[in-house]
Amino acid sequence: MIVQKYGGTSVGSTERIRAVAERILKTHRAGNQVVAVVSAMSGVTNRLVKMAGEVSPDHEPTGREMDVLLATGEQTTIALAAMAINQMGGSAISLTGEQAGIVTDAEHTRARISNIDPSEVRRLLDDGHIVILAGFQGKTRAGRITTLGRGGSDLTAIAMAAALKADLCQIFTDVDGVYTCDPRVVPDAHKIDEIAYDEMLEMASSGTKVMQSRSVEFAKKFGVRFEVRNSMNDNPGTIVTEEHPNMEAVVVRGVSIEREQAKVTIDNVPDTPGIAASIFQAISDAGIIIDMIVQNMSKTGKTAISFTLHRSDQKKAEDTLRPIVEKLGDPVFMETTDGIGKLSVVGIGMRSHSGVAAHMFTALAKDGINIQMISTSEIKTAVTIDESQLEEAAKVVHSAFNL
Amino acid sequence: MIVQKYGGTSVGSTERIRAVAERILKTHRAGNQVVAVVSAMSGVTNRLVKMAGEVSPDHEPTGREMDVLLATGEQTTIALAAMAINQMGGSAISLTGEQAGIVTDAEHTRARISNIDPSEVRRLLDDGHIVILAGFQGKTRAGRITTLGRGGSDLTAIAMAAALKADLCQIFTDVDGVYTCDPRVVPDAHKIDEIAYDEMLEMASSGTKVMQSRSVEFAKKFGVRFEVRNSMNDNPGTIVTEEHPNMEAVVVRGVSIEREQAKVTIDNVPDTPGIAASIFQAISDAGIIIDMIVQNMSKTGKTAISFTLHRSDQKKAEDTLRPIVEKLGDPVFMETTDGIGKLSVVGIGMRSHSGVAAHMFTALAKDGINIQMISTSEIKTAVTIDESQLEEAAKVVHSAFNL
Repeated sequence: MIVQKYGGTSVGSTERIRAVAERILKTHRAGNQVVAVVSAMSGVTNRLVKMAGEVSPDHEPTGREMDVLLATGEQTTIALAAMAINQMGGSAISLTGEQAGIVTDAEHTRARISNIDPSEVRRLLDDGHIVILAGFQGKTRAGRITTLGRGGSDLTAIAMAAALKADLCQIFTDVDGVYTCDPRVVPDAHKIDEIAYDEMLEMASSGTKVMQSRSVEFAKKFGVRFEVRNSMNDNPGTIVTEEHPNMEAVVVRGVSIEREQAKVTIDNVPDTPGIAASIFQAISDAGIIIDMIVQNMSKTGKTAISFTLHRSDQKKAEDTLRPIVEKLGDPVFMETTDGIGKLSVVGIGMRSHSGVAAHMFTALAKDGINIQMISTSEIKTAVTIDESQLEEAAKVVHSAFNL
Repeated sequence: MIVQKYGGTSVGSTERIRAVAERILKTHRAGNQVVAVVSAMSGVTNRLVKMAGEVSPDHEPTGREMDVLLATGEQTTIALAAMAINQMGGSAISLTGEQAGIVTDAEHTRARISNIDPSEVRRLLDDGHIVILAGFQGKTRAGRITTLGRGGSDLTAIAMAAALKADLCQIFTDVDGVYTCDPRVVPDAHKIDEIAYDEMLEMASSGTKVMQSRSVEFAKKFGVRFEVRNSMNDNPGTIVTEEHPNMEAVVVRGVSIEREQAKVTIDNVPDTPGIAASIFQAISDAGIIIDMIVQNMSKTGKTAISFTLHRSDQKKAEDTLRPIVEKLGDPVFMETTDGIGKLSVVGIGMRSHSGVAAHMFTALAKDGINIQMISTSEIKTAVTIDESQLEEAAKVVHSAFNL
């Protein structure tokens, strides 16, 4: 039993839908039971959002109505995909999220799956049908239509695979899998055959956005082994799975880069409990997503707190923190820098191999690249550097770890 | 409590949806509970059907998948209309057919409503909300999405009005109401203020297609008084209601014309039981819709059977009947004529006033218009004439009855 997921680009036209239908049918004819989760055709969601803005220019539409609107996108695709398969001699049945037994909480536009009753899907599969399932959507117990937010179709596929105890879940996208680095930056980058959930999560959070973290987290939690592969060719993809001893043979799995970062530093902060908390509470309340946080204490007993964030949020962060800094008074001051980039190396192998950081820093130093901030986790080492040197740094580090 | 229905042209753009939202809100603010049934935006259904043809060029898609696809049209409109009302300060909640408790049989693409549980709609109305309801759709007991076929949104409105025991049902369209004749043909034609269900049905079946007959029949059956009116202005419309004695003061309510008709005659048929049956069974099996049927016996004991149908079905009817005529053998022959039109006068008043037919025929004769076929019901007199004389005939008859 295989659960497949096809994203918006893969089903972006009726011609593409026919190509996807052929692939699904081929999988079925190879002797598999198949559930195919499909997204809205690319462009459709944007068109719906635009119309919502036209009828409701002054107010954000309620999440309830937004979900009723957005859910039509996937519902259109499931019907068309099922028709295409039936036309080719297969037997496909479409199901909306609700019909497939996907129950969510009532957090409209970003609902969480609370339960899946896969009995209807299983019944259709056992009757020999291919099930075409609308991604990204579900229904509350009270019968309201909900959507799952960004990456929702991936989540539908992985959650349904878990509920069905499927043998494999395939996430079809427009790239061949997860790469050791972005091939547009590092021409030597190659596809990774197998990667651990935690590595995938660190790659995602450090710029390699093949999938949203929540889907990977869900897969990890329920032990759903899945494959990221290309819907346009037959190349094998990247298997994402639980870690196993062999994986540690490779110290570093991949290199991620993230551009357009900015850094905010609050300097000369007195070492008093609660100040860091007030800073990050204000940032959180303002809905600003931050990434690395670094704090250093100087000999004077004063602290410098720095964090990075996307450049587009820089001004908002400054406006949010200015009153706090002013209240703390002299000599506390705020300093912001943009034009920085983040470079991360990720690998569960580094747990048992010391010296990864040193090896990375040496490679960068040899090439004259200055490191600004450092942040590490058990399986990741990240640094910020000048954005203009980011691509050069990626090449150097990729090569230093023989990827 | 008012149930309103807005057709595809009335909600054909986001701008139009905002205009409709204003009208709904105005009705609500005047102190009414309001349920507004909306259709798919004009053009959307055609676009969906076109896509279905693209993914399934060789086979008719299954009705099940066609309904999943088509239902997205109305679902899009309900969300946008609810958003528009909320934006204007109202409180609207959208409901799909299923959420509104509309249960149908499983005849996909032309389902019949088998039951309505209006408790959720009533609860929302009692909580002070405006309910925006998707027309044209429902769900089977087994949870499949269905659509109601042509005129389905009108039917949704009238059926919901019946289930809610609403005080009034308003069918908003792009004309001011039902006219005594098509104003493009007869400039003197005027809007009818009140019309009986039976008259409306006869008008519909004789060419004045403001609404599909099934909705009017449903309204008649459940005694739902409704108004046909224009969504682009505030003119009062035509009230369609149970007949009452005053209505008979007007002998003829209106004049309908139907163009592009053809006539098929099977002549010299021996007067043997079963021949007419075999002819019309064959026509019915071929899915051809016929209108007037006339049979005359000549002195020779031979019969001529004629019927009218739309010109586009003429060839199909000929092909269907040719083998039957050949089997009957000489002297039976088939003759077909196109270029004919139908003219009908309708009015419950003619039940108690003799001479309507004579008056009509005299008016036509005076103007040199030759009558080909005649067919009458209790409240209708219809004739076929040469199509080129149809407009002239409509003017003459409209004037003869002082409409």
